[in-house]
Amino acid sequence: MNVNDFLQAHPRSLSNIEKVTACVKACYACSEACTLCADACLAEQEVADLQRCIRICLDCAAICETTGQVVARQTETDYGLLRPQLEACVAACNICAKECENHAGKHKHCQLCATSCSACEKACQELLAAL
Amino acid sequence: MNVNDFLQAHPRSLSNIEKVTACVKACYACSEACTLCADACLAEQEVADLQRCIRICLDCAAICETTGQVVARQTETDYGLLRPQLEACVAACNICAKECENHAGKHKHCQLCATSCSACEKACQELLAAL
Amino acid sequence: MNVNDFLQAHPRSLSNIEKVTACVKACYACSEACTLCADACLAEQEVADLQRCIRICLDCAAICETTGQVVARQTETDYGLLRPQLEACVAACNICAKECENHAGKHKHCQLCATSCSACEKACQELLAAL
Amino acid sequence: MNVNDFLQAHPRSLSNIEKVTACVKACYACSEACTLCADACLAEQEVADLQRCIRICLDCAAICETTGQVVARQTETDYGLLRPQLEACVAACNICAKECENHAGKHKHCQLCATSCSACEKACQELLAAL
Repeated sequence: MNVNDFLQAHPRSLSNIEKVTACVKACYACSEACTLCADACLAEQEVADLQRCIRICLDCAAICETTGQVVARQTETDYGLLRPQLEACVAACNICAKECENHAGKHKHCQLCATSCSACEKACQELLAAL
Repeated sequence: MNVNDFLQAHPRSLSNIEKVTACVKACYACSEACTLCADACLAEQEVADLQRCIRICLDCAAICETTGQVVARQTETDYGLLRPQLEACVAACNICAKECENHAGKHKHCQLCATSCSACEKACQELLAAL
Repeated sequence: MNVNDFLQAHPRSLSNIEKVTACVKACYACSEACTLCADACLAEQEVADLQRCIRICLDCAAICETTGQVVARQTETDYGLLRPQLEACVAACNICAKECENHAGKHKHCQLCATSCSACEKACQELLAAL
Repeated sequence: MNVNDFLQAHPRSLSNIEKVTACVKACYACSEACTLCADACLAEQEVADLQRCIRICLDCAAICETTGQVVARQTETDYGLLRPQLEACVAACNICAKECENHAGKHKHCQLCATSCSACEKACQELLAAL
């Protein structure tokens, strides 16, 4: 999916296209990663030790998906709405990355998810800094 | 849907059940309202004058849906994740209520949506105050 | 949330308003119920015995939320898209109701969720029959 | 996002990993594409001629996002739930591709979206054939 091609095709002249592109990609990728990690955790024998990881991943998946949508839209963007949602995404990704890092030695899916969460946190922060 | 009955049936002892119940209900109701308002705006003859209303309603629908999910979950809640998402929902509902109020005289669906957004903003603020 | 008031305020003349209203309400209620049930199951001591229930509830929550949105929209509805999504929702609700019924004696949240799923299955079927 | 790496890290032995990977990627990509196309259409001067395109894209975005989630999960998969959701996604992508092709000569974003929808339709069909 080339987000950049879509943004180039938008009828309005947009700003921060590179950072928006990076942020949208990171949000959708992190939403997928968190969905996959929650599901893999649920199938682990020690699922009872992964309750917090599953819960945080489910929240983070939903928050990233919504943030990806909100960032992707370029028609009549309201920064008063966009900024707090990006901040919520930064917080969720930071907390989810830390939780998954706790299990990264034991579970490869938690390691992969932590990497996606950290990348998404960074992309949201960079877009926030550019707004 | 009786959210309160579900929370009473949760295996953990929960706090703020009344405010959580009110907030979950308000978030899902506002997500529905914003989805319905965006769709009705799209069918209006003067859709070109409602571009901002449609865009804000779509964002607010997604943010309320995600916030409703995050608030509903009671297993291993992390306030560091919950608070910013509630704040993002307060901001989105406030902006969407104001936008819909601009069209409330002309469009009954905008009037109804503004009411749902204001109710959701208030429910999120009351839960935030109780955390 | 009065879905019916919104539909009355839609600029186009709509058909099946009663059944659409009932279906939208049931879909959003079932999405909430499945989110709450998955979360309560995750907190149960015997979470390892509830893996299937959690997974099905997560799927059913997402499917009902999407179906609720698709049914709610009244602008340029395409029955070729609407019908299969309603059928997918009927299938998900039927399977989730059965899964939750298996645990209804032990867990009140599963009993409540089964009831919501059955109500949603019925509302989708009644709308399908009316299209 | 490397879906395949996640699936390799899943505690259960999975089948159809390649087709599942392709389908999850295509669903998330199509959800992004439809979100971006609906938003770009909304900003076009002739938005009144794009009402159907916007509505179908919004539905298709939600359906692909949900289908992506359902396909991604590998714990206790129920084919009775998975199949109809894949079929709903095939229908939505087929209809959305056709709608966007109508505007592809005028709007590059519709052309890009039609391509994503067709790719997603194909990926869902190939997974359906393999189940």
